[in-house]
Amino acid sequence: MRQIQREELEPLATGAWILGTGGGGSPYLSYLNMRKLYADGTRVNLMDPAELADDALVAVVSNMGAPLVGQERLSDPAFAAKPVRMMEDYLDRRFSAVMSVEIGGGNAFQPLLVAAMTGLPVVDADAMGRAYPEAQMTSFAIAELPMFPLALADIRDNEIIVTRAASWKWMERISRKVCTEIGSIAATCKAPRTGAEVKAFGILHTTTQAIALGREVRRARQAHEDPVAATLVAARGKSLFRGKVADVQRRATEGFLRGNARIDGIDDDRGAGFQVAFQNEYAIGWRDGRVVVTTPDLICVLDSVSGEAIGTESLRYGQRVSVIALPAPAILRTPKGLEHVGPRAFGHDTDYVSVFDNASAMETWP
Amino acid sequence: MRQIQREELEPLATGAWILGTGGGGSPYLSYLNMRKLYADGTRVNLMDPAELADDALVAVVSNMGAPLVGQERLSDPAFAAKPVRMMEDYLDRRFSAVMSVEIGGGNAFQPLLVAAMTGLPVVDADAMGRAYPEAQMTSFAIAELPMFPLALADIRDNEIIVTRAASWKWMERISRKVCTEIGSIAATCKAPRTGAEVKAFGILHTTTQAIALGREVRRARQAHEDPVAATLVAARGKSLFRGKVADVQRRATEGFLRGNARIDGIDDDRGAGFQVAFQNEYAIGWRDGRVVVTTPDLICVLDSVSGEAIGTESLRYGQRVSVIALPAPAILRTPKGLEHVGPRAFGHDTDYVSVFDNASAMETWP
Repeated sequence: MRQIQREELEPLATGAWILGTGGGGSPYLSYLNMRKLYADGTRVNLMDPAELADDALVAVVSNMGAPLVGQERLSDPAFAAKPVRMMEDYLDRRFSAVMSVEIGGGNAFQPLLVAAMTGLPVVDADAMGRAYPEAQMTSFAIAELPMFPLALADIRDNEIIVTRAASWKWMERISRKVCTEIGSIAATCKAPRTGAEVKAFGILHTTTQAIALGREVRRARQAHEDPVAATLVAARGKSLFRGKVADVQRRATEGFLRGNARIDGIDDDRGAGFQVAFQNEYAIGWRDGRVVVTTPDLICVLDSVSGEAIGTESLRYGQRVSVIALPAPAILRTPKGLEHVGPRAFGHDTDYVSVFDNASAMETWP
Repeated sequence: MRQIQREELEPLATGAWILGTGGGGSPYLSYLNMRKLYADGTRVNLMDPAELADDALVAVVSNMGAPLVGQERLSDPAFAAKPVRMMEDYLDRRFSAVMSVEIGGGNAFQPLLVAAMTGLPVVDADAMGRAYPEAQMTSFAIAELPMFPLALADIRDNEIIVTRAASWKWMERISRKVCTEIGSIAATCKAPRTGAEVKAFGILHTTTQAIALGREVRRARQAHEDPVAATLVAARGKSLFRGKVADVQRRATEGFLRGNARIDGIDDDRGAGFQVAFQNEYAIGWRDGRVVVTTPDLICVLDSVSGEAIGTESLRYGQRVSVIALPAPAILRTPKGLEHVGPRAFGHDTDYVSVFDNASAMETWP
């Protein structure tokens, strides 16, 4: 257990936004919340998963919904903590720690916000190693752990607990409809996990990795080096395309942000075209009409100059971007994992196409 | 407290279906369930609300959703009792009795099904004195009693508890979306009521009234008298129109059955036309384009020969029908009541039009 330092917050925002692969919501507003809390003297502790007792009860939290809406309806610490209190009341048990369902995007900060309100330590782990739009797209779902109960709250006085669900997909369907009805943004506390479950099936040390990645990008930027190249080295990624955004189609629908973007090549890629499709997160990429990368590879669209990630909700015409891929956690690339998060899970009728050979990809980074 | 007799079940189905004003779902399948349970020796007790202790805890149950779907996805006693068990687990308290949210339609039998499974007595009362499509359209909502918690289950293994809601309308919106997602039919246990609340704000003795009405219709039918005329006498109603169904527009949408029907006049009404619009229940009637009756008056469409009610899901071309109106419970006709269940609550831009003068309507029937 160690204290998260004030100067780690900004790198966490940068790193988590890259790992968000376009989704998870911009970390910026949650980062501002945490900076204010730190300025007021609040401190949050980061806990190595190995420190968790097997029978410890861990809250798994998220800010759920359409990223575009998250830009308008702002999160705050009290709202983030609300479903955690609901779950404690429902279970009549106290949590020992809190973790994010996804390290990618704003949800990297969600457990920090809860920790600031409750004093609970943040577990250095998540359940995706990136961001994904749906409930069944987690390492816990792939491991077939129970998916209920789930607590969900809005900014009004609406509070819902899904006490049982027939499957992870049913949990997704029901909670998504509720989320959509209350404005396409909800604070959630997912099915509680034991310490043993987190250690066995979580994606470990991803908060630390996100901070390290963000630090490297910021270091390169300050040293006038190429921050995109720095990300590729730090996260063992591969460059896919450099270009200018030519067209974006985007719609907030069924609680998701769906669409696709076309990028015209520049520099070495002049004359070529790249297309990405997304459901909150970038899911698949085509170069000149041919699939060259799919989920679970992390498909990241970065600002070519600053190296900052560009979310699916802020991608727009004229941006100079670099499309890169980072290797996904091993469990997502197993056959069972691909059932949950492969391209077919997003409605794309293709097998998993990776830019990483299996041997190198099976290593985790950094 | 008295035992409901086997020979009361069929009259209850007939009477409740008339009081359903087209909605509440056909009682037929629930009646068959109860007949089977009675054949197997089960008996259910009916309790006068006056017998309820002030602090007794009463389960308020319903089969919620689109009536058309209720014809395909059948209810059963175990399913009806599921949300009641959920609520007991959630509250960590046992119920003393069970009542229906609405006496109209199949929901007249819902507490009997629960009683058959649990041994609880059925309270001789409901919260509408008829049927209505939405959560805020009850005497309990009009009295501004709390609307949560609400337990909701489907036939799979999905169970949801709305632990808090910002208003009755928010409770309606959230529970409706969940209901729609799980197939537009759900068994629910609404916000528990105390005995004192039921006695003060329930619509009392409506099970007894429904049985009496159904008995009278069946007696007239067997005596070769006019069962429609018998209903008008028994329930102090007024005849509005006799005709033949000429056209029905109907769609199952957003968890409701919405539409309207056109009836061409016969006998004394030859040459005239009548139109009714419905959202699960008949809400408003026009004669030759002029509004002549609106909710909360009970607008009932009956088979002209048998006197049996015709639901909005089974109304069809060619049926010989009698449109009648029955007076609504007094609380629904108060200014506060009309906010909840007047024509504007159903999107019809007109004031309440009643076929009853206020003095006679303020009496309850029979």
